[in-house]
Amino acid sequence: MNREELIEATRRQMPEKRWRHVQGVVDTAVELADRFGGNRDQAWLAALLHDYTKAWATDRMERILREEELPKELLEHDKELWHAHVGAWVVRREHGIDDEEVLDAIRYHTSGRERMTLLDKIVCLADYIEPSRSFPGVDRLRELAKTNLDDALLAGFDGTIRALVEQGKVIFPLTVLARNDLLLTIRSSAKGNNK
Amino acid sequence: MNREELIEATRRQMPEKRWRHVQGVVDTAVELADRFGGNRDQAWLAALLHDYTKAWATDRMERILREEELPKELLEHDKELWHAHVGAWVVRREHGIDDEEVLDAIRYHTSGRERMTLLDKIVCLADYIEPSRSFPGVDRLRELAKTNLDDALLAGFDGTIRALVEQGKVIFPLTVLARNDLLLTIRSSAKGNNK
Repeated sequence: MNREELIEATRRQMPEKRWRHVQGVVDTAVELADRFGGNRDQAWLAALLHDYTKAWATDRMERILREEELPKELLEHDKELWHAHVGAWVVRREHGIDDEEVLDAIRYHTSGRERMTLLDKIVCLADYIEPSRSFPGVDRLRELAKTNLDDALLAGFDGTIRALVEQGKVIFPLTVLARNDLLLTIRSSAKGNNK
Repeated sequence: MNREELIEATRRQMPEKRWRHVQGVVDTAVELADRFGGNRDQAWLAALLHDYTKAWATDRMERILREEELPKELLEHDKELWHAHVGAWVVRREHGIDDEEVLDAIRYHTSGRERMTLLDKIVCLADYIEPSRSFPGVDRLRELAKTNLDDALLAGFDGTIRALVEQGKVIFPLTVLARNDLLLTIRSSAKGNNK
């Protein structure tokens, strides 16, 4: 399957508005890859496919989660997390995507995780800041993203955690682990620079 | 060892200011136990001993953590958490405290945990709201504590998480698990009441 076919197959999974978001994430991820020394082909592919099953019916995702080799504990977590893992499973099966780095970037684009790869960070941050996004603080993230990937992503996670507290919603524990890990990475690299 | 001796032994572990805090936690914990149907003797004992090693030198706590049967992963977490687990270990050894509920309330008074017991909640909340505490939002916690233990404790954890985000500090993952669990408990009991 070539790029055009993959684009069309992805577009068919979602309504127009979600597709515009995906296009924004693709452009932003490629830009971030160029800026921070990432692989632009992987960034393009992971960004294109990151929300592949986002618009699918919940019961369709649930069936895949229950029947296939996917982490069952996801069933106890917020449904918001399902599309990331289910999406990675589906694009491997339907489109033969077998680049584990790309699949991981899809799997962890919503929650983040500890020891995120450069590609994980690029896709996750692009998802926060692509042009159609508007939420309090997004312009600050865009500013930070011009110079520092980790700082921008940390600010993104911090905003998410704060918003979930304000809204009385469950906080994904993995997001807190990702955020703590980034914080320590930033701190230790700051120490290194001061030597 | 009688109550007076245990009080004196505890007082000797810490400077006067910390001791005033402990006295505040004891009074508040007993009050909360009476209000919410807890065991006042357990509340008294756990509150008295909750900060037993809080003022100890870090290397003294570290030695105990390394040499005794205590969870080694604590060494990777914030030192702020150490005194809770080390304290439970020390009071068992030095004073023969063997009530596991009391020891757990000491162990988890700083972080919280999933499925907190009534005693865990009482000691943890008393630690937030005892009279000498002053931080933004403490009066709201005291108000909530007059009628609803879970609501008050959730507000306490939310405030802690928010403050750690603002200050760029590591968030204890266990606190997030405790907070999520409380949130779901409150939600499901609200649903029950609406039936």
